Amino acid sequence: MYRTIEWLDDSSQVRLVDQTKLPLVLEHIVTGSHERIAKSIKIMEIRGAPAIGAAAGMGMALAAIESKARTKGDLMEFLEKAADTLNTRPTAVNLTWATSRMLEVAKDTDGSIDEIIKRLVDEGKEIAEEDVRMCRAIGEQALSLIKPGYTIQTICNAGSLATVHLGTVGAVVRVAYETYNGDIKVYAAETRPRQQGARLTTYEFMEDNIDTTLITDGMIGTVFREGRVDCCVVGADRILRTGHVINKIGTYTMAITAKYHNIPFYSVAPASTVDMITNPEDVVIEERDPDEIRIINNQYITVPDAKVYNPAFDMTPPELIDAIITDRGVVRNPNEEKMRKLFEKE
Amino acid sequence: MYRTIEWLDDSSQVRLVDQTKLPLVLEHIVTGSHERIAKSIKIMEIRGAPAIGAAAGMGMALAAIESKARTKGDLMEFLEKAADTLNTRPTAVNLTWATSRMLEVAKDTDGSIDEIIKRLVDEGKEIAEEDVRMCRAIGEQALSLIKPGYTIQTICNAGSLATVHLGTVGAVVRVAYETYNGDIKVYAAETRPRQQGARLTTYEFMEDNIDTTLITDGMIGTVFREGRVDCCVVGADRILRTGHVINKIGTYTMAITAKYHNIPFYSVAPASTVDMITNPEDVVIEERDPDEIRIINNQYITVPDAKVYNPAFDMTPPELIDAIITDRGVVRNPNEEKMRKLFEKE
Repeated sequence: MYRTIEWLDDSSQVRLVDQTKLPLVLEHIVTGSHERIAKSIKIMEIRGAPAIGAAAGMGMALAAIESKARTKGDLMEFLEKAADTLNTRPTAVNLTWATSRMLEVAKDTDGSIDEIIKRLVDEGKEIAEEDVRMCRAIGEQALSLIKPGYTIQTICNAGSLATVHLGTVGAVVRVAYETYNGDIKVYAAETRPRQQGARLTTYEFMEDNIDTTLITDGMIGTVFREGRVDCCVVGADRILRTGHVINKIGTYTMAITAKYHNIPFYSVAPASTVDMITNPEDVVIEERDPDEIRIINNQYITVPDAKVYNPAFDMTPPELIDAIITDRGVVRNPNEEKMRKLFEKE
Repeated sequence: MYRTIEWLDDSSQVRLVDQTKLPLVLEHIVTGSHERIAKSIKIMEIRGAPAIGAAAGMGMALAAIESKARTKGDLMEFLEKAADTLNTRPTAVNLTWATSRMLEVAKDTDGSIDEIIKRLVDEGKEIAEEDVRMCRAIGEQALSLIKPGYTIQTICNAGSLATVHLGTVGAVVRVAYETYNGDIKVYAAETRPRQQGARLTTYEFMEDNIDTTLITDGMIGTVFREGRVDCCVVGADRILRTGHVINKIGTYTMAITAKYHNIPFYSVAPASTVDMITNPEDVVIEERDPDEIRIINNQYITVPDAKVYNPAFDMTPPELIDAIITDRGVVRNPNEEKMRKLFEKE
């Protein structure tokens, strides 16, 4: 699998995959403009928390190059504005995290404008590299759970396209696939309403020649009963200290169905996804636009004014989760004590 | 809700809803031609076992009117040909059942051609009436399980559009709605791949002003956990003597998820759907065209050559079913002994 976003050293530009065109067309955006990067983030040509973090970092490096500043003061002013421009999605913490980190680096660098620019380009590339290393670490941690010959059930897309490279669930599949000489298969659940399993996961594993079978969300019971999969590996938008996993809608139903069939259920995320503060009962699940359910490919699939319930995520309790896999380690049968220990490791 | 198919006495024609246009447009086909009825069955303008049985019966009555026969021998010959024409879907037992019944009636009627025609028209209408009475009986039987104020979770469409009127699951909802002065609500699962929950169930309950909320199949876990529904009521394509229910794909996953939340799970069908012979291990589940999953509204939602698994139905074991509701009675906690008793009632 190619990288979702890359810095081109030859031309000092950024190249990223236009995810709005996938899976039918693979098109790249190549730009030297931080404003174009901001637009890509806003209209979701690039998406996924780690990927947009890297985009914002590289966008700041582009801004430094674009700036006509001759003093550090002018440069900093230009960069502050660029940071505002790049923060196009208010709830995406990775954006503010990445732009703040880049501003910090600029501030802390002594030397000429050219030296500061060089330092920012390196930092932007480093943010991307850290993501790649984190994903690989997740994949390596998971090898203790994934055996050669396994078929892995996925939901949604926590793949390469949500990160710079490999993905989180994507890394579990890809590192096992590499390590076991290709002896790994995937079942991808479509994941209505937005169908990331059909549009992205199936596409990106097929790009890597990994044997992938697409099913609809209601088919998991039959797939599990027929012994077609060996374990479920799902991502996580947030993991609580109690071991509760908040992930794409459908995850909880899959976890219940897996438990009924004694199929191990694993959730995967960077350790940075773990929220040590919030209580399960305080989690608020975002409800999204009803038209996500009513409309597919610009056409209604139901009565246009049908009443709809559209929670974007669900919460799976720890009793349904056999292990949480992070870049820092694996927590089997998660609970608060074990989650705390994972964080004390540092 | 209007009738899916009706005999028009004034013009000696048949009127049926063109289900290929739903839910965006309600259009009727009005015809005096049995060949037009055959086409409607073939291209699924009318669908659902009971509905196409009634269509074939009325189609035979139309054929008798269309015939220029002056002798009973010529009429029978014409009707035999019409029966062949109407049997456009080889596995639909209701078609052969209805056309054979009509041929039998013609054969057994003594009198003029006009008298035979009148008898056939009455019989075609009677097939439809029997279906309406059967559905109403199912709805009345279900009243022992459905309480005022209930919200009912459905899957697929076992509604009015699959029958002449009311439906099977549709009758459970509608008879309770009438009986309890409108104090019944519905959650309809979309039912990928063919989305009958979104396209048909949501539409037809909205037509009857029943408060209906559409969800995607993966949302059932959240809906159940949040206490939004009081029971699940699903149809059945076949019920085995052991109490196993074969129904639309997704039913089994829903039953497991309901059990986990202690939500009663009911399956509804005419007693004629019960198969007293086949063993659960001998049931073969039809696999359908992969493009049902890959394509929605004529557009790909995944890679065009994505590998797909597309079982059309699944089988839910009796330990997940709290009751089977038929027009002959309700079987709680179904097993072979109780299923046999239901049939000995006659």
